[in-house]
Amino acid sequence: MTGPAKSSPEVEFWFEFGSNYSYLSVMRIEDAARRHGVRIAWKPFLLGPIFRALGMETSPFLIQKEKGAYMWQDMVRQCRKYGLRWRQPSSFPRLGVLPLRVALLGADKPWIGAFCCRVMELNFVLDQDINKAESLAPILTELDLPATDILNEAQAEPTKTRLREQTDEARTRGVFGAPTFFVGSEMFWGNDRLDDALLFASEQRS
Amino acid sequence: MTGPAKSSPEVEFWFEFGSNYSYLSVMRIEDAARRHGVRIAWKPFLLGPIFRALGMETSPFLIQKEKGAYMWQDMVRQCRKYGLRWRQPSSFPRLGVLPLRVALLGADKPWIGAFCCRVMELNFVLDQDINKAESLAPILTELDLPATDILNEAQAEPTKTRLREQTDEARTRGVFGAPTFFVGSEMFWGNDRLDDALLFASEQRS
Repeated sequence: MTGPAKSSPEVEFWFEFGSNYSYLSVMRIEDAARRHGVRIAWKPFLLGPIFRALGMETSPFLIQKEKGAYMWQDMVRQCRKYGLRWRQPSSFPRLGVLPLRVALLGADKPWIGAFCCRVMELNFVLDQDINKAESLAPILTELDLPATDILNEAQAEPTKTRLREQTDEARTRGVFGAPTFFVGSEMFWGNDRLDDALLFASEQRS
Repeated sequence: MTGPAKSSPEVEFWFEFGSNYSYLSVMRIEDAARRHGVRIAWKPFLLGPIFRALGMETSPFLIQKEKGAYMWQDMVRQCRKYGLRWRQPSSFPRLGVLPLRVALLGADKPWIGAFCCRVMELNFVLDQDINKAESLAPILTELDLPATDILNEAQAEPTKTRLREQTDEARTRGVFGAPTFFVGSEMFWGNDRLDDALLFASEQRS
């Protein structure tokens, strides 16, 4: 669990549990960040309000049929490339507001990476509903965490408000999809830019 | 000029001179394909009719302001990464129907790569109109080619028809942006997938 020191450069990692390309980054980022000596600031947010603010009722992959069809092909190949398991979810995009709230509570905790990986696998490997307490409690318990307390806090008003505020911040900063990475004000969009973002962050060390 | 043998695996390279991400691939593909021992089938096509068929009046980068703003930032960094020169064009997306017709005529010729690179640099480095004979003639002449003959043939009806047909083929095969690569029926979208496409092609050799 020892990560880069507090003084290390940082990359902000904006992600959504319903987002398939966020799945790739969630699974890769801890190892990759360690190799670059970069700290991760985990930033869960809701894509739905972002898409709606941009005039889209749902995921662009549903709105643009051709791009959606391609994306499923691409995911098979990308997962093979990265050595990740993959099953196309029977429901897409899955609502992940509850696990996002939990991730918000855990953002600074040592269990954040493991928790996010498990939720992503629930969605993109096990093809299961990720938006209910019964799905998340076993994950938290397996991580030796007080599942009931965390899930209660996740569903309390202050947490809901914080997730809305974090989503507003994403929109204000020009986020239009996930995953998105920030190094200071420099924005990087998409799993394909994860390594570029980490390299850029590591070069900020002076 | 000696490229991979005729029996080598092939990647189809669908590109547009107005497309900024096509610029990156045009500049990179010949070296990269040589390294992988893969032949390139150059497939110029028009993006405009593809976007219109998908219900978009123009480039998605103009329609989605946020994504467009990001894209210009991304291009600066990508060009730096690949060691390419870059100037944001004062007109975007530039119409490139005439050079696309020339590229159609040259698709199987040894000069195709060099011609495409020069046109791309005219657009994305020198910020000049690429859609007129006076812009293209010096490029063809510098390549020791009969500029007048080629430009006449490019503007003749059969060439116009062929470019329309090639654009129809792109749409039929599910192309929704550029650059796009095909290895057989396997489609790869975007400059970020150039290396994946070449690797996939090279693995088809058995």
